[in-house]
Amino acid sequence: MTFSSKLIEKAVEAFSSLPGIGRKTALRLVLHLLKQDKSVTEQFATALRTMREGIRECSICHNLSDDVICQICADSRRDGSLVCVVENVRDLMAIEETGQYRGLYHVLGGIISPIEGIGPGDLNIESLNVRVQKGDLKEIIMAISPTIEGETTIYYISKYLQPLGVQISTIARGVSFGGDLEYADEVTLGRSIVARMAYTAK
Amino acid sequence: MTFSSKLIEKAVEAFSSLPGIGRKTALRLVLHLLKQDKSVTEQFATALRTMREGIRECSICHNLSDDVICQICADSRRDGSLVCVVENVRDLMAIEETGQYRGLYHVLGGIISPIEGIGPGDLNIESLNVRVQKGDLKEIIMAISPTIEGETTIYYISKYLQPLGVQISTIARGVSFGGDLEYADEVTLGRSIVARMAYTAK
Repeated sequence: MTFSSKLIEKAVEAFSSLPGIGRKTALRLVLHLLKQDKSVTEQFATALRTMREGIRECSICHNLSDDVICQICADSRRDGSLVCVVENVRDLMAIEETGQYRGLYHVLGGIISPIEGIGPGDLNIESLNVRVQKGDLKEIIMAISPTIEGETTIYYISKYLQPLGVQISTIARGVSFGGDLEYADEVTLGRSIVARMAYTAK
Repeated sequence: MTFSSKLIEKAVEAFSSLPGIGRKTALRLVLHLLKQDKSVTEQFATALRTMREGIRECSICHNLSDDVICQICADSRRDGSLVCVVENVRDLMAIEETGQYRGLYHVLGGIISPIEGIGPGDLNIESLNVRVQKGDLKEIIMAISPTIEGETTIYYISKYLQPLGVQISTIARGVSFGGDLEYADEVTLGRSIVARMAYTAK
């Protein structure tokens, strides 16, 4: 598809560089913005730019954060003795969405995957170790997608933290094996947090 | 879905205000931008802002344009004796895409629709009349979606221009009645421009 306007061409290219958006959809979005007042596009661009400039990683749990410490870590009403370990921010959000969990989190930033060349050193495991060593943690909940890589990651971390004597559990396996945690429905995901099971590396 | 970050919340709101994008998709797009370098978001925001600020309506045909006169009207290699009348810019782009038409355009900005309160006065019909009166036009091709409102619009315009004695045709009705012109495949749409038929208001 070619356009007689370079400005539109560039805006369409911008939208269609996003995942899941083709050129036809991109054009529809651009024409939608053109139908609205200029201020709508202005606010849209500003929201994205401000977000991208301002966002940082929480210095405690590696969650996306507006400040040095994220809102969850900074919330004194949450149970500081529980830490839920997740692969990424999307999984953290999915668990928050269930409303069933009131502890803290630790975002690994991935899972161990030899095929993709991701080893333990690439993940936020050492900072989890530091949190455990500081004490106060009663339990670490592994909320990792139950795939081969996920199981490997859980095994590695539990072995790594075993000397510190902290209780490690995994979410209940209501989530089907091979499934993706992100797409589990809220009820299943919520219950799997509540009915988590003790985990021992054998 | 609630987020622990206000910045993300606002960016998600921005994306999900666009048509066809829900909050889950919006979040996916935001997280995608966060994975990329800051400059990607910067360029994205700039492309949209520049487009929205810079785009204007062609003073001749009402097409979206980067300048006072659009690239199509300014192109001396195109046949200035042919004007194709379309409902909107999207239809113009669909016809351009066929590569079968080398004349000019006239964008009405809508079609006559009593139900939606759109009358002839709300459309760019008077400026079409002016173009015809200036002479040089041999033929006006009505490339309007063959719906009730479309037929009404074609009828109105042909009656209105009849005194000026210009030849009026419609695109061949290979496009199914009640169908939307925008979604016709390129071959059908291209042929319907080539095999256009003379139109007489009865």
